[in-house]
Amino acid sequence: MRILAAQINPTIGDIQGNCSKILHALEEAEKQKAEIVITPELALTGYPPEDFLLKKDFIAAVEKALSSLIPKTKKVGLIVGLPRKNLARHGKRLFNSAAVLWEGKLLGYQDKMLLPTYDVFDERRYFEPGEKSLIWNFGNRKIGITICEDIWPHGGGEFAEIYAKDPIETLKGTSLELLVNLSASPYHVGKSPIRQKVASIAAIDLAIPVVLCNQVGGNDSLIFDGSSFLLNLEGKLISSAPAFEEAFTLFDTESALLTLPSKSPWEELFAALVLGIKDYFAKSGFKKACLGLSGGIDSALVACLAVTALGKENVLGIAMPSRYSSPESVQDAEELAKHLDIPLRTISIEGPFSAFLELLAPHFKGIAPDTTEENLQARIRGMLLMAFSNKFGMIVLSCGNKSELAMGYSTLYGDLCGGLAVISDLTKQQVYGLSHWINREQEIIPESTLTKEPTAELKPNQKDSDSLPPYELLDKILVDYIEEGLSKEEILQQGNYSKELVSEIVKKIHLNEYKRRQAPPGLRVSEKAFSKGRHFPIVQKWQ
Amino acid sequence: MRILAAQINPTIGDIQGNCSKILHALEEAEKQKAEIVITPELALTGYPPEDFLLKKDFIAAVEKALSSLIPKTKKVGLIVGLPRKNLARHGKRLFNSAAVLWEGKLLGYQDKMLLPTYDVFDERRYFEPGEKSLIWNFGNRKIGITICEDIWPHGGGEFAEIYAKDPIETLKGTSLELLVNLSASPYHVGKSPIRQKVASIAAIDLAIPVVLCNQVGGNDSLIFDGSSFLLNLEGKLISSAPAFEEAFTLFDTESALLTLPSKSPWEELFAALVLGIKDYFAKSGFKKACLGLSGGIDSALVACLAVTALGKENVLGIAMPSRYSSPESVQDAEELAKHLDIPLRTISIEGPFSAFLELLAPHFKGIAPDTTEENLQARIRGMLLMAFSNKFGMIVLSCGNKSELAMGYSTLYGDLCGGLAVISDLTKQQVYGLSHWINREQEIIPESTLTKEPTAELKPNQKDSDSLPPYELLDKILVDYIEEGLSKEEILQQGNYSKELVSEIVKKIHLNEYKRRQAPPGLRVSEKAFSKGRHFPIVQKWQ
Repeated sequence: MRILAAQINPTIGDIQGNCSKILHALEEAEKQKAEIVITPELALTGYPPEDFLLKKDFIAAVEKALSSLIPKTKKVGLIVGLPRKNLARHGKRLFNSAAVLWEGKLLGYQDKMLLPTYDVFDERRYFEPGEKSLIWNFGNRKIGITICEDIWPHGGGEFAEIYAKDPIETLKGTSLELLVNLSASPYHVGKSPIRQKVASIAAIDLAIPVVLCNQVGGNDSLIFDGSSFLLNLEGKLISSAPAFEEAFTLFDTESALLTLPSKSPWEELFAALVLGIKDYFAKSGFKKACLGLSGGIDSALVACLAVTALGKENVLGIAMPSRYSSPESVQDAEELAKHLDIPLRTISIEGPFSAFLELLAPHFKGIAPDTTEENLQARIRGMLLMAFSNKFGMIVLSCGNKSELAMGYSTLYGDLCGGLAVISDLTKQQVYGLSHWINREQEIIPESTLTKEPTAELKPNQKDSDSLPPYELLDKILVDYIEEGLSKEEILQQGNYSKELVSEIVKKIHLNEYKRRQAPPGLRVSEKAFSKGRHFPIVQKWQ
Repeated sequence: MRILAAQINPTIGDIQGNCSKILHALEEAEKQKAEIVITPELALTGYPPEDFLLKKDFIAAVEKALSSLIPKTKKVGLIVGLPRKNLARHGKRLFNSAAVLWEGKLLGYQDKMLLPTYDVFDERRYFEPGEKSLIWNFGNRKIGITICEDIWPHGGGEFAEIYAKDPIETLKGTSLELLVNLSASPYHVGKSPIRQKVASIAAIDLAIPVVLCNQVGGNDSLIFDGSSFLLNLEGKLISSAPAFEEAFTLFDTESALLTLPSKSPWEELFAALVLGIKDYFAKSGFKKACLGLSGGIDSALVACLAVTALGKENVLGIAMPSRYSSPESVQDAEELAKHLDIPLRTISIEGPFSAFLELLAPHFKGIAPDTTEENLQARIRGMLLMAFSNKFGMIVLSCGNKSELAMGYSTLYGDLCGGLAVISDLTKQQVYGLSHWINREQEIIPESTLTKEPTAELKPNQKDSDSLPPYELLDKILVDYIEEGLSKEEILQQGNYSKELVSEIVKKIHLNEYKRRQAPPGLRVSEKAFSKGRHFPIVQKWQ
């Protein structure tokens, strides 16, 4: 069987635009003699459409788009993801569905049966679960259709626990020849092999090939990797679509097995972040970015990512030294800008800093300098970046990493300024790892940026290690607590930490919820990011 | 029957503290010869506990607290709201339950059957729905127990549509003598009579009295009004607990009907906002607030609310005039501070403003002043407020209203600075209404603040009406679109608006999602607030 996976990069709410991409896929399929085109989950709206789903005119526009697609499927069938109305008396007003189009007719809908409502997913907010998995006849071909989560519980683990139903189980012993899965399965480091493993279990247990079409592209915090694939009835990979790019990929169940070149994990992470930046800009109509270059590793990494995503002509670096900045920091920023071939403006913040200190002196008389004065500097920098943003229509890129965000080692309205927090889901260790990977062939990030001790340079001789535990230790505990969801007791069993240290870190994470609530949206690349999918109260007494 | 409603104000995650309040209620009940104490929904954790529910040690602490309560119920029974483990093989790991304690024993649990997952609610993220409504024997008394949402579909309307089950319907024809409802039902303007109406339909249909115990207090954006009550079997109010304050209220089903003094809607709104501020500070251990006093109505209203909530000794006003501020503005700020008897610092922002303009001049050469320079002023003010916050441990109160937030008529990191956005869910019209109510007996907010035309004073002769439609018109359209959920077409049918105006407003609302994403948490007082319960993507092409 020849299936074309339309691994499209939809824009949320651009129903016409997304529909055009699907029409284009149908044309391409005809050329390539495919029998059926499949799309990602909710392809007509883009995933996740969030509360637009509650708007009647939005759903009407989806229905209109579907109507326009039906007559275009006379030669090639189409399985297209979309929300559809639930006309039953009770229940949520929508199903998360696949419309099945064949020979110019709408055969019907396969509704998603399992609705993820955890982490970044809130499908129970909008959808009623489908009742059963149907068998669909495309001429004499019998195909089963699942939507994303529907195949996951059969793979075991925590997913098996959540749901009472297992759609794959109910399809056993039927006459299916192929199982299709429409997905909008977001990326995190290491996700793709897990997704393939889950699909392979379905393939093996049903003893049929499985083809999965996944959304690609960045939508706010979420990055979708695409990586659509076809597995044979033994669950082995026959062929796959590229990761992190839009593609129409022809999958032929008769093809031989493929041997894939393996991608380095850093290469994958780099591609994910680049796509996240690219789409945040392109889909909102922006071209240019600016960012503060401190000479430190975080801003250096963000600059490299931005240049790859937006082009060097669209990235402006701004060095904003203060009385506490070392000359080496500015040199490092200059060297980086030279390596990346981007313009660098250098603006000393001494003038406004002095003006603020003078203005506040009578009010702060007799009180020693503290973080107030440190924050002033970070906020002046934020203001300058925002002035460039306002004046030239640039988006400010925020350079904080996950370790800093966790600990509140950042200034609200200072370095937390920005339209997009590019590396906010990378621990400091990952920031180093990815930076070294960037430098694998030539020095792009200056060597001294990589080797010097991290410092915020907001007071004389300041080092991150004055305020924070060593990053190696901190990052491990952060991952255990935030991503793995371990309790303090379980973390203590993992490593040789002091109880006080673990308690202090966990306390600080929750204490700084208020800062993160006002942080820019950040690109999600881990299983649990701060930016989306993690809901904690600001005011609480548990930690 | 004599029931004591423990209308407590729990702190999220303060399991021991919340448990102590319940123990205290049991003691009080014994004194008052009550037979049973009832609490709000999830009383042991506070509502909403959010992702703390996913933590094993959190649930273990709830279990421990419940164990400590059991032996204390030898003389007075207890129906207490708490999360409990779901031990079944499949499904979410918790139920949202009521533990039923009687004669020193745990009789069992009544699980919440209907789990709201819309607006501010996300209960399907954590809980599995309960299977049925049981009849509970307290000695020879037969009592039915429902949890919040469980009684709502029976009242009809949109709630009847969502759920296939109606717990009240299943209790019809049983031998129940009393129906209990544990609630954590958040306040919005006009909510209390709706809640009573829904309960009265249950009372009438079951022909038994209904007693409802609702949580009171502010938890981040959500304000709970309490207003617990007892209705007789005709659905008439026998007695009610106070609104917006903690109370142990004895409800006696044998009592005569009560005639209640009616509260003005403005009085109610004022009390709600005051409670929201009070709890945000008290529960996070803060005492002092500062805010910018511009001489305008928004900051004047916030100052009045803050003084009532925190005491005049804990509120600092800061006037920050610029070259564009009129002398009248500073006079109005001074007069307000005098009326409220709070200190006022006056700090001209000219110094830092000039310093920034000078610093940026070479970079902005040849480009006319625009919003960049306006935003600089707002951001300098934000920085000064944050400096006071950092230096003196004050929380900055943000003074933006809902109309401004909707239109993006505010400066990110400028007037959007703050720990709490007090009036962010009030339209400009409501800001005027509440301010006039505050001045009902004497002039607290200066008359000229109430009568002058609104202006941001960020450039010469600026007026809000230069950039925004008249507030009367704007606010109506905003309420129609945001709170009523009407489409543009439906809005056009409501009033004599131009199609362009409605389109432009709706477009601006969505365009400014990015600013609101970084706005401080705001107190929710409407059916649809920006701060919580409204989920839209930043990057989208629908509007």
